[in-house]
Amino acid sequence: MTTGNEAEVDLLGALAYGQLTGFLRLAHDATAAPTLPEMAGLGALAVDEFERYRLLRDRIVELGADPEAVMAPFVPAVDSYHERTAPADWLEGLVKAYVGEGIATDFYREIAVFVPEATRELVLRVLVDTGNADFVVGAVRQAITDDPRVGGRLALWARRLVGEALSQAQRVAADRDALTQLLLSGSGSAPGADLVEFGRMFNRITEEHVRRMARLGLTA
Amino acid sequence: MTTGNEAEVDLLGALAYGQLTGFLRLAHDATAAPTLPEMAGLGALAVDEFERYRLLRDRIVELGADPEAVMAPFVPAVDSYHERTAPADWLEGLVKAYVGEGIATDFYREIAVFVPEATRELVLRVLVDTGNADFVVGAVRQAITDDPRVGGRLALWARRLVGEALSQAQRVAADRDALTQLLLSGSGSAPGADLVEFGRMFNRITEEHVRRMARLGLTA
Repeated sequence: MTTGNEAEVDLLGALAYGQLTGFLRLAHDATAAPTLPEMAGLGALAVDEFERYRLLRDRIVELGADPEAVMAPFVPAVDSYHERTAPADWLEGLVKAYVGEGIATDFYREIAVFVPEATRELVLRVLVDTGNADFVVGAVRQAITDDPRVGGRLALWARRLVGEALSQAQRVAADRDALTQLLLSGSGSAPGADLVEFGRMFNRITEEHVRRMARLGLTA
Repeated sequence: MTTGNEAEVDLLGALAYGQLTGFLRLAHDATAAPTLPEMAGLGALAVDEFERYRLLRDRIVELGADPEAVMAPFVPAVDSYHERTAPADWLEGLVKAYVGEGIATDFYREIAVFVPEATRELVLRVLVDTGNADFVVGAVRQAITDDPRVGGRLALWARRLVGEALSQAQRVAADRDALTQLLLSGSGSAPGADLVEFGRMFNRITEEHVRRMARLGLTA
């Protein structure tokens, strides 16, 4: 296996495990819903993640790799993120589904640029916005209207989500040479990012995060 | 709303809530999986339930009813069933997914005979076996081969599942006149069951349950 292919499979493994466990976590958080339609709303987001997992797993198999082996290295970081960001209530669950999943999705979309075309296209297609998260915006804004103090609490919560996501991403970067190499030197079919491009990528992800927070009525 | 239509909507409401909450419970039980492929295996069963919920909810809306209002009367019985049958480990979760869902599915299929054709067809189509539960058979049989004592414990567990399912079904029957009336006198488009037919229905469900237990290598 070349380093390029190793990084490609690494990306698919991280993403696949993220979606599989995201599915389970969102389904868990859905049980805190105050109404059945809201329970089904977060449930639909969970199911989106499982469908993505299926497509990613199929691609891993297509590349001749074993999905379980490919996902295994990312279990500790992804699980740590979720353990450290277990929502205390329904609203925290909604913000996590919208802000946490949003920033992770943007990050994976950026990385996808560096992998070979077939996988890049799959990742971009898999991560397309289904619109199923849109109900979160109305629900969070309504909660802030009902009690403005909620806005401050949820803004702090979102900051914690971002902090935990970043520290787990760093942990993965330190562990997975192939993935880090991919970002810095490319896969052969696409050039890697230099530090300037790396900075720009980070800015794009941050800007999108700020926009997402604004949509929820939260200060980033 | 006629009594026939009320019973039709009742059936859809009970089934829709059963699938929505079944989705959440199976996703929860999947977290106990010993391996990622098994986690994904139970996850696929959970997702099947959510897809069924979606189709049933759409049909409820089509009939001019409010899904939340229609599901609400069945929340206590369905939730009680799940609270009283929370699996203690992965194997109990597998048996619940196979035996508990299996018997509920057979029961709903039998009731569907008495509702108008469009809904009957939807219910039968929704409840078709996706084959996603087949992996449970191999996993349970393997566990019994590894440690034969497991077979006795799981057989007792399955008996408890059936007992709890029956007592919650009785609770629903006592509460929901329209549904009980439907079974006994029919909906107008189909005749109801007399006591003889009722006994036969019960026998068919029991026989199928015994076959399901045998497939798992368990004594019913």
